[in-house]
Amino acid sequence: MRIAVVGTGLIGTSIGLDLRRLGHEVVGHDVDAERAATARARGALDAVAPTLEGLWNPAPDLVVVAAPPRATIELLGRIPPAFLAMDVAGVKVPILAAAGERRFVGTHPMAGRERSGPEAASASLFRGATWVVVPGSAAPADLTLVVDLVRRLGANPVEMTAADHDAAVARISHLPQVLAAALVDLAAADPGAFALAAGSLRDLTRVAMSEPGIWVELLGANEEAVAAAIDELVERLLAYRDRLGNGDRLGEDLARARRLREGLAAPVTPVRVALADRPGELAKVGRALAAAAVDVRDLQLRHAPYGGGGVLTIAVRPGEAAPLVDALAAEGLEVIGGR
Amino acid sequence: MRIAVVGTGLIGTSIGLDLRRLGHEVVGHDVDAERAATARARGALDAVAPTLEGLWNPAPDLVVVAAPPRATIELLGRIPPAFLAMDVAGVKVPILAAAGERRFVGTHPMAGRERSGPEAASASLFRGATWVVVPGSAAPADLTLVVDLVRRLGANPVEMTAADHDAAVARISHLPQVLAAALVDLAAADPGAFALAAGSLRDLTRVAMSEPGIWVELLGANEEAVAAAIDELVERLLAYRDRLGNGDRLGEDLARARRLREGLAAPVTPVRVALADRPGELAKVGRALAAAAVDVRDLQLRHAPYGGGGVLTIAVRPGEAAPLVDALAAEGLEVIGGR
Repeated sequence: MRIAVVGTGLIGTSIGLDLRRLGHEVVGHDVDAERAATARARGALDAVAPTLEGLWNPAPDLVVVAAPPRATIELLGRIPPAFLAMDVAGVKVPILAAAGERRFVGTHPMAGRERSGPEAASASLFRGATWVVVPGSAAPADLTLVVDLVRRLGANPVEMTAADHDAAVARISHLPQVLAAALVDLAAADPGAFALAAGSLRDLTRVAMSEPGIWVELLGANEEAVAAAIDELVERLLAYRDRLGNGDRLGEDLARARRLREGLAAPVTPVRVALADRPGELAKVGRALAAAAVDVRDLQLRHAPYGGGGVLTIAVRPGEAAPLVDALAAEGLEVIGGR
Repeated sequence: MRIAVVGTGLIGTSIGLDLRRLGHEVVGHDVDAERAATARARGALDAVAPTLEGLWNPAPDLVVVAAPPRATIELLGRIPPAFLAMDVAGVKVPILAAAGERRFVGTHPMAGRERSGPEAASASLFRGATWVVVPGSAAPADLTLVVDLVRRLGANPVEMTAADHDAAVARISHLPQVLAAALVDLAAADPGAFALAAGSLRDLTRVAMSEPGIWVELLGANEEAVAAAIDELVERLLAYRDRLGNGDRLGEDLARARRLREGLAAPVTPVRVALADRPGELAKVGRALAAAAVDVRDLQLRHAPYGGGGVLTIAVRPGEAAPLVDALAAEGLEVIGGR
């Protein structure tokens, strides 16, 4: 296929890299000519078009618009409606409305964005990620083309309506962003608390370090759903507040939340290893992991403040904890709690 | 010193293990005789006393009460007031009130508790952890003894008043616990959202998997401060809600929260490595870490759902990213985004 990528930031460049690896011809354009040149130098594009219109000849089989919501809406108005277009923006209702009756499939790859720009792109960015696909009024053949492409990029396509997507990301992504900011404000208002800042606060507020610009646009574009999610959370928080002194009721609530959250986690067993403050400790862990041939589901390092030591938590499938513990012990590492 | 440990769960047994390693004589008691026997078998105790009173002869230099808040209050009434006692419970105002004028120093080691019981104990549990010390009306010599002990256990003692401690943990630990439960409820109410559940929701709600029992007691014992923290958070959330459509103001708020949160994080540079779905990938990472001799600050693995592959994020000090990237590349690993 001949595919045109409009916008060569992290997402557009990563898509280009992977599409070229799959053998497609990829042409690209970016309002920032330097970003397009970087994307090409990284191998994401066969050619750069100096103008948007320069992408249309010969006609592309697919136009991937990889831009923030407002720019996506503006660009959709400039792409000939006979070309199939898809976008990757983090809200879908305003985008689908702007697309109207043109050939279009809305999508949203839910991949991390701690870094941005073509320099941070990778052909493996989408590996294992969920990628929402919003069919809207797309023709079946157009929808199939986009869903297949998402699969070839290593992601898991999930079809939803635009409204369901926006309500869902309001709850699981936009609300957590607002919440992280509010929690940081709250903790910072008490210098003693901020200095203590335990692991749970760090976990809860890590996303507050994201680039504000993109979030201002996303939150504004999804204002109604985010406001509804905030209202719902406030209601639930105040209900918990009224139950703090009612141990039985509070216990039931916390137990229910725990069951629900456990349903979200892959069933894993944590293995905790004490790492001494000397070189080579993590190499031992690496050798033990290789020897035990276990499937690592998660890694967390709690670091001692004064040096290289700390406690590494390795999450594995329940049946694989015992061989891993043995392999770690064989490397001379201290496994906290043993087998 | 001769030290008596009352309560041989995770904390009491870990303290015993480390104190014996330091050369102290440690005697212990637990209402659950089997737990005390396990602690002794693990090497945390020189001897087990079948009754609390059996610990007093010869007189201990220090009695460490390692129990939940209610049990701690009950035990303090049964320890001869001439003995110096310290506790480790997660709230301090009710404990200090119960201690009255007896010889006592309140403390709270802020170490993880994903697992519990003497089986999970480790002499290195407190390595690098913050350990709050509440002097109350303790004599200077008693306070010095406890602070020195905390340091010898590898932790960082931080002195606070009981009220400041309880307000601080309400914000950084108790509120996040309630919040995680409320967020899980909220996300679970929308099955579509729950299925999408991105990284930020997982981070935000991980603590909801904690044991409910201990939290019911902690939240009840710190009801006033937790309710105040919930009220403050609700107020801040509603303020954000009113600003969702006001881009300039929202941008300022998010940028301020970002700056504050960055102050909380050790300054680190993330290095992202793509791991293929084959054995030995993590061993390569281990070798590269050993070769580069960098100081790893954090590790995060985002896992592909279909196998062993994924993206590993290694956080290192900014100046150490380049040598690590080179070492990873030398092992044949793909570093996302390059140097």
